[in-house]
Amino acid sequence: MMKAVRFHGQKDIRLENIEIPKCGKGQVKVKPAYVGICGTDLHEYEEGANIIPTTPHPITKEKAPLTLGHEFSGIIEEVGDDVTDVKIGQRVSVQPIIYDGTCGACRDGLINCCDNNGFIGLSGWGGGLSEHVVVPRSAIYEIPDSVSMELGALVEPLSVAWHSINISPFKKGDAVLVLGGGPIGLAVIQCLRARGAEKIIASEVSPGRREFAKRLGAHYTLDPTTDDVVARVRELCGGVGADVAFDAAGVQVGLDQALKAIRAQGTLVNIAVWNKPAQLQMNDLVFREKKYVGVTTFVQGDFRQVLDAIASGALKPGPMITGKIQMDEIVEKGFKPLVEEKDKHVKILVEVSPC
Amino acid sequence: MMKAVRFHGQKDIRLENIEIPKCGKGQVKVKPAYVGICGTDLHEYEEGANIIPTTPHPITKEKAPLTLGHEFSGIIEEVGDDVTDVKIGQRVSVQPIIYDGTCGACRDGLINCCDNNGFIGLSGWGGGLSEHVVVPRSAIYEIPDSVSMELGALVEPLSVAWHSINISPFKKGDAVLVLGGGPIGLAVIQCLRARGAEKIIASEVSPGRREFAKRLGAHYTLDPTTDDVVARVRELCGGVGADVAFDAAGVQVGLDQALKAIRAQGTLVNIAVWNKPAQLQMNDLVFREKKYVGVTTFVQGDFRQVLDAIASGALKPGPMITGKIQMDEIVEKGFKPLVEEKDKHVKILVEVSPC
Repeated sequence: MMKAVRFHGQKDIRLENIEIPKCGKGQVKVKPAYVGICGTDLHEYEEGANIIPTTPHPITKEKAPLTLGHEFSGIIEEVGDDVTDVKIGQRVSVQPIIYDGTCGACRDGLINCCDNNGFIGLSGWGGGLSEHVVVPRSAIYEIPDSVSMELGALVEPLSVAWHSINISPFKKGDAVLVLGGGPIGLAVIQCLRARGAEKIIASEVSPGRREFAKRLGAHYTLDPTTDDVVARVRELCGGVGADVAFDAAGVQVGLDQALKAIRAQGTLVNIAVWNKPAQLQMNDLVFREKKYVGVTTFVQGDFRQVLDAIASGALKPGPMITGKIQMDEIVEKGFKPLVEEKDKHVKILVEVSPC
Repeated sequence: MMKAVRFHGQKDIRLENIEIPKCGKGQVKVKPAYVGICGTDLHEYEEGANIIPTTPHPITKEKAPLTLGHEFSGIIEEVGDDVTDVKIGQRVSVQPIIYDGTCGACRDGLINCCDNNGFIGLSGWGGGLSEHVVVPRSAIYEIPDSVSMELGALVEPLSVAWHSINISPFKKGDAVLVLGGGPIGLAVIQCLRARGAEKIIASEVSPGRREFAKRLGAHYTLDPTTDDVVARVRELCGGVGADVAFDAAGVQVGLDQALKAIRAQGTLVNIAVWNKPAQLQMNDLVFREKKYVGVTTFVQGDFRQVLDAIASGALKPGPMITGKIQMDEIVEKGFKPLVEEKDKHVKILVEVSPC
């Protein structure tokens, strides 16, 4: 038996003893080391089940109760009979997307847009918040020797940010507006800095998060409750506006501002999850030929690019880690401070089997 | 003195005698031949002034009453002292954008996104619906010998369509959905056909306009009041959806359908003018990484591409012309049938000085 943190329902997460999963063909068994707590986990706890299936998931056939943890590093402890290209003891980061491989999006390589997609740690196949987890061979990315296992647990949220930049027309030297200084907004700022943005302007209500934005690479920070975001961005960007904006906040007023604050033919990338329709001021979109682009998670390869960027020193995401806790502390020392002291926290890691 | 059709106010358009404009430096005087009536003219008549300035326009310094007509061909009858590269008697199509040349968008070559932009025939500097008009040298494009002056008057709406395709990621062989079978929707269909779209699916309520859509190049037509547009488009596009969609209708239900009917990472291009904010179903945009792109009018060069495509026979827009009338008939035989018999009409041309 092994310990696992499992979601049973709203405000009902339990540390339980469950069966150790078996490692089959095409699979590897990983001993999770560090596991990041994601906003998604928090939303599932506070108001779920949202993404977590309560009827069998089309791919995993599993439903709640399910093991949590989709941002994690670990050590390979067993490999399937037919898996010959990875070794026991290898340090890895786990790319958690579950996809069917057969829908139109998957056939185009867009596993993140799979009609039936899910996530290890949310939709079945176990999760990082357990002593052992079995994942497909294709889900693991080797962590270079120079990269710590703690940073290996940040690869998932950094890949969300990295991918959103890959999807956007961003190029080195651009001026960029980032809305929201939560974990994903900060990851975008850090990735933009690594990729040569000339001006990174962060708009965030919380003073603490504006400080994190600066530490992680923002050249300017704005407080949307007191600054005229549109005027300030235009002024900072030669009077014409930002080349690209990233919305990691997902609130109407921010969308309105960002659409105005980008230049003619500029692009606004939405990474945020909205729980209602957005209102779009069409004249801003049409008469300045602007683009509004949705992005979600990452595709194969994004993990590799992020791991390489950490190894090269281009990405320095260390300051994102603001706490380390144990599995039995996830609610009290994980979810609670992330809600009640969000000025102070970005990413809290659960030490499952630290190494 | 000369005759000119001038907008005085809502439902008040007059055929008047006004001064003949003088041709100055950098300008050419054109004798308009054929002038298309645009939906914009109609909206100004029915519910204006909308675009037409009632206080001095920032560039032209003019305000209503103003001469109408921004889609026109004509013959050069005089050139400014310093204009050496065009000749009297030359057949031309007039590109009507008025721009300041100094704003950020103009400096990027995006004259259509100029902060102060206007149009010959709507914002001052005269218009096509007069016996003479003086325009900047940069506004004229020579009509090849093989192209009729009637088709020369269609270059403006065709350039709107052509430009929207240039802005989009459309490529030869793509499957495309077009919403709306009005003049711009039909122009998009015609341009897509010329540019090698493999499947053009037009969604339009009016049976007469669906017939025009077929004549101008649509492979399939759908009636959104009876057909399940999303299901039909997916089915016609290998189960995955259209590569690109063009919205030339600008209604909420169409936007909702088009966003669902495009494939993962597909693009929806909005050409329509909206008079209220649009509601965007964010899950459709985000979880399938779709793009929503605004486009407006055209930039330098689009007129040339359209004229070349007509000359080569790739574009065959003749069936768009559904009537020819005289200047004094613009309300009775122009605006009225365009409203009351819109099933039968696409583009009505005013013969000013036909040749």
